[in-house]
Amino acid sequence: MDRSLYGLAAAPEWPSLRSMLPDLQGRRILDLGCGFGWFSRWAREQGAKSVRGFDVSENMLNRAIEMTCDDGIVYQKSDLEQIELAEAGVDLVFSSLTLHYVENLARVFTSVHRALIPGGWFVFSIEHPIYTAPRNPGWLIQSTGHMAWPVDQYLIEGPRVTDWMVEGVIKQHRTLATTVNLLIRSGLVLAGLEEWGPTENQMATRPEWSEHRDRPMFLLVSARKGV
Amino acid sequence: MDRSLYGLAAAPEWPSLRSMLPDLQGRRILDLGCGFGWFSRWAREQGAKSVRGFDVSENMLNRAIEMTCDDGIVYQKSDLEQIELAEAGVDLVFSSLTLHYVENLARVFTSVHRALIPGGWFVFSIEHPIYTAPRNPGWLIQSTGHMAWPVDQYLIEGPRVTDWMVEGVIKQHRTLATTVNLLIRSGLVLAGLEEWGPTENQMATRPEWSEHRDRPMFLLVSARKGV
Repeated sequence: MDRSLYGLAAAPEWPSLRSMLPDLQGRRILDLGCGFGWFSRWAREQGAKSVRGFDVSENMLNRAIEMTCDDGIVYQKSDLEQIELAEAGVDLVFSSLTLHYVENLARVFTSVHRALIPGGWFVFSIEHPIYTAPRNPGWLIQSTGHMAWPVDQYLIEGPRVTDWMVEGVIKQHRTLATTVNLLIRSGLVLAGLEEWGPTENQMATRPEWSEHRDRPMFLLVSARKGV
Repeated sequence: MDRSLYGLAAAPEWPSLRSMLPDLQGRRILDLGCGFGWFSRWAREQGAKSVRGFDVSENMLNRAIEMTCDDGIVYQKSDLEQIELAEAGVDLVFSSLTLHYVENLARVFTSVHRALIPGGWFVFSIEHPIYTAPRNPGWLIQSTGHMAWPVDQYLIEGPRVTDWMVEGVIKQHRTLATTVNLLIRSGLVLAGLEEWGPTENQMATRPEWSEHRDRPMFLLVSARKGV
């Protein structure tokens, strides 16, 4: 919840995700799953020309609207399963920890490809499939005393039900290969992947994050539309 | 060992890897880590113009030479850590379950990029990082009775010592992101990934392979040199 309340600085993977972004000066941006609008507002502070934030949650959007005072940002209620984006209109599509809720990811990627100008960027994060795969997603203690993340069902794609914040949240588990292949098939060119883990500096101030070195929780992806 | 003795047909991931290959008719091919030469000979049967197989093991190469009667195939002793490949000379570089032994993967990828003609293919398999990561790479039984693969140290890259065939075999564990990013940085364009698991047909005849659906053992990669 930290990240919703306190914004980007509270998200441990944010420095890595930020480093995958192009210079935002003058860019037209879409923010898929904008939540409270933290990224949308930050992008404008970086000189973005315009940002359109989409979210399915009216509560989130209302809070985003309350927190925003900027004509360059428009928030719009939209279900990503049905989203229609205008053709070749934007320089960057961004999405933070949203696309693992989407069932029809191929459709979203095709829409993103359409929406981007040639040379445009798509940068997103999702929960890592090692994190989402298990039937019982909690640490085990091995006989050696070390913690282990109990991976099973990795190749069995589909819904995973967890009780995060509210009961019965459904995430879509997809292998890393599926996500990357859908991206490539949509016509985008993969530019880089990161399986996020804490830096030495982060470990010094937040030793509890060390578990992410054992099992990454976030997958960060950058891709480009060919020129 | 099945795969060394009985060839490609004994490798469960072979049909998937084969499906990532271009038509081999008339192609000049390098086979990095050729072992007994199964792939080199098969490629010639498919119409390849020439195949050069490299392996560090003299025993393997001697056996490959014994099993081969074909002027279109040359075997050469070579340590992939030091390999030098001629520039823009080949259409396809292939490598099966070898590159996870290589320490300096960036160097190999750069050599492969140099060796390929524009539009050329690089298709390889390695052990999957979910498989190589753990300190204790063996199945755990969970309290629910389900098997789990105990992932830890996933982001801690470097040597992993196992006792496969001979004691103290050293594999280089690298995250999936590292492998893909090195490929991209070498100038190659990722064409597809597969985290291999058995098909329904394979499961029917080899039910013991079902564990690979819980935890993939092989990562298959195809990439192309831009035209």
